[in-house]
Amino acid sequence: MNKITNHLPTAELQALDAAHHMHPFTAGAALAKKGARVMTQGKGVWLTDSEGHKIIDGMAGLWCVNIGYGRSELGVVAARQMEELAYYNTFFQTTHVPAIALAAKLAELAPGDLNHVFFAGSGSEANDTNIRLVRRYWQIKEQPQKRIIIARKNGYHGSTMGGGSLGGMTYIHAHGGKIDGIEHIGQPHWWAEGGEMTPEAFGLMRAQELEAKILELGVENVAAFIGEPIQGAGGVIVPPSTYWPEIQRIVDKYGILLIADEVITGFGRTGNWFGSQTFGIKPHIMTIAKGLSSGYAPIGGSIVCDEIAKTVGEAGDFNHGYTYSGHPVAAAVALENLRILEEEKIIDHVRDVAHPYLAERWNALTDHPMVGEAKLVGLMGSIALTPDKATRAKFAGEEGKVGFRCRERCFANDLIMRHVGDRMIIAPPLVITPAEIDVLMERAWKSLDECYAGLKADGLFVSA
Amino acid sequence: MNKITNHLPTAELQALDAAHHMHPFTAGAALAKKGARVMTQGKGVWLTDSEGHKIIDGMAGLWCVNIGYGRSELGVVAARQMEELAYYNTFFQTTHVPAIALAAKLAELAPGDLNHVFFAGSGSEANDTNIRLVRRYWQIKEQPQKRIIIARKNGYHGSTMGGGSLGGMTYIHAHGGKIDGIEHIGQPHWWAEGGEMTPEAFGLMRAQELEAKILELGVENVAAFIGEPIQGAGGVIVPPSTYWPEIQRIVDKYGILLIADEVITGFGRTGNWFGSQTFGIKPHIMTIAKGLSSGYAPIGGSIVCDEIAKTVGEAGDFNHGYTYSGHPVAAAVALENLRILEEEKIIDHVRDVAHPYLAERWNALTDHPMVGEAKLVGLMGSIALTPDKATRAKFAGEEGKVGFRCRERCFANDLIMRHVGDRMIIAPPLVITPAEIDVLMERAWKSLDECYAGLKADGLFVSA
Repeated sequence: MNKITNHLPTAELQALDAAHHMHPFTAGAALAKKGARVMTQGKGVWLTDSEGHKIIDGMAGLWCVNIGYGRSELGVVAARQMEELAYYNTFFQTTHVPAIALAAKLAELAPGDLNHVFFAGSGSEANDTNIRLVRRYWQIKEQPQKRIIIARKNGYHGSTMGGGSLGGMTYIHAHGGKIDGIEHIGQPHWWAEGGEMTPEAFGLMRAQELEAKILELGVENVAAFIGEPIQGAGGVIVPPSTYWPEIQRIVDKYGILLIADEVITGFGRTGNWFGSQTFGIKPHIMTIAKGLSSGYAPIGGSIVCDEIAKTVGEAGDFNHGYTYSGHPVAAAVALENLRILEEEKIIDHVRDVAHPYLAERWNALTDHPMVGEAKLVGLMGSIALTPDKATRAKFAGEEGKVGFRCRERCFANDLIMRHVGDRMIIAPPLVITPAEIDVLMERAWKSLDECYAGLKADGLFVSA
Repeated sequence: MNKITNHLPTAELQALDAAHHMHPFTAGAALAKKGARVMTQGKGVWLTDSEGHKIIDGMAGLWCVNIGYGRSELGVVAARQMEELAYYNTFFQTTHVPAIALAAKLAELAPGDLNHVFFAGSGSEANDTNIRLVRRYWQIKEQPQKRIIIARKNGYHGSTMGGGSLGGMTYIHAHGGKIDGIEHIGQPHWWAEGGEMTPEAFGLMRAQELEAKILELGVENVAAFIGEPIQGAGGVIVPPSTYWPEIQRIVDKYGILLIADEVITGFGRTGNWFGSQTFGIKPHIMTIAKGLSSGYAPIGGSIVCDEIAKTVGEAGDFNHGYTYSGHPVAAAVALENLRILEEEKIIDHVRDVAHPYLAERWNALTDHPMVGEAKLVGLMGSIALTPDKATRAKFAGEEGKVGFRCRERCFANDLIMRHVGDRMIIAPPLVITPAEIDVLMERAWKSLDECYAGLKADGLFVSA
């Protein structure tokens, strides 16, 4: 067998990486010069790199390793499934047990009548499925012009042409284009955009942009609205309490479909199985990925309500699907992950132990001179860095410069925290213990202090 | 651990499947009524279903199980990697050994200066990467209007919004739309469309449609051309020998980028590592998936030439990528698959043993009264069903009706062959032995005979 050794010198691994590996969302030449950090091991909430650093992972890989690293049960299941039936397709009137069992389990876990699963390989692919699915639905309903999907600025729905277009990241649209039939409204980001309004009034106003947009486009042209219960890659933007109830009212009033992108918020992240439960949202479709397998195997999908599944299923072939839809190994791994989440009561742990313990300490970060607000839902949190808390001012210079400096301090202190602009975000594995939260918080304070001191020294702690 | 049992009664599994699992490219309600066939085991070229049938798989799952089913080495590698580092992202200046090692190995295997790998989770996602990548390339070259990609009718490039739009399947475009900036030219399908021309003259003519299309659109607006060396899902359409050299001449003359979609033709399928080698094509980008891991783990990617990688890498962030780009477990599994392909000389087996043995028997199918032409490159073949070989006539009635009947006979005879319209296609695991080829051919003849007899009895063996 292949010996994939972690024992090459770091510099040699970095040189090979620079020569052959194109990284996502990265400036290749700059990274090649610097050399990528080589991760070699993961156990629980801890990572080890090729230089032996023990790093606490405040991001669960990329919002996905919900059960933590190194759970060998998943590997045992994968090996067994690879030996039994490593692959089979589900296209040509065939099926297999892992896809059936996972679909049935997801139908059991999902709220309401979300009883049907269309599998994909990722959240991106699943959102492309959703575009096709809602347009197909209205076609069958003899309203083929009902094809526009309304999404939000600064939302994130993946990086395919479809997913990237649903997303409201203009820097993604700029590299390769945005498909037609997608419209964006404002985001419920009170800290950055709320001005003098209360969060509640601002949340209501932003939700009402949906109604205005529907009326502007004509309800006869609007297929669906899509949103993440909490915007993740946009900076963990927790919407004001008024936001989702108003969105739900508008969606119900106009009879358009509601897609909840649960790729990040699903599988315990917010203290319930799904973020839709935490926010009282009643979607027709949920996008899932990441926590579905805790990232141990690539898998995603759409959980679909009875009405859409029945309508599309009765209208003949739905001309869409992926080679790896319902992949037997990925499905078996996902099932084992769900078993662990359930049997080990990990979501109860989030709600009853980890969240309350972290929340108290996370909120206390607002005592730091450069932290304006702190937000935490379940184990998904953010802080806003600011030179002036009272006015919620931005830093002078390019947005994200301070956030990047702060992230670099975290990295140096063996803590993975991510920055989005000048916001720092966390989403640690759901199994994090109070003792580990103490380590995370200690390193976070240290990194913030160092970043603050550096900014002061460089004369950069000033408003725009 | 989860016991995913194969021992539930078939009817119970089918009922659960019907209630919760939405199948790709399927009419859900019709399948629910009939009940899906439940595959339970795979070993070598053999599948077993829940009723104990031993089925020979003439399609390698879905063109992907190149090394055959049941190779436990891949499971061992997956389990070890899941325990060591089950997941880590490659976004934020980090990397890991499986992604590095696989990228380096692919650079070694790929021809020319295709030295850089951008990983995706599937062929669909990789083609979405390609759309963004070629458009980004020309943007950096200060030709942002160079964004149209020319593809072929009846080509297949996946099922995302991008991949499905590159594909020339109008039935896919019909369900959810086609993105802008993609144009289609004719396919080199001599049997169906060649009329009175020789295959060579027809191949040349179809290639020259590319030149005409470039001139019509203006070369300043054309970014790239994409094609499968052999159209797979379109019906295993082997182009006339004149086709690819002329395409290459035109691409070179106008300086547009060439993308070879090697998702099906890669990793030994045509008797070389890549179909581009078999046909003498020199692409700037190759799309890969399927055979890369023999389907044991979901993984895909783009192998990119020096010029594009350098240009894009030096221009700052490329704003694209997937959570599962370079997934460590999938990458480790792919590496092990490549080791097996290489060390067991499976591609030599295709070229020197399996292809010659099968070719003689496959070509003899033209002796059957309803088989018009037989094509086989490596282990990728097709036959055209026709009521009149001399005129290459189509059957009366809906296209594909006869193909579907033939496929149903194959299924009943425990042979997986697929139909595309009235064409029957095969792509068995590359490890198939002469003795297994004998079984495959025996069942193919039996199925064709039964189909022919049925058509005669029903008065359907007549031309349109």
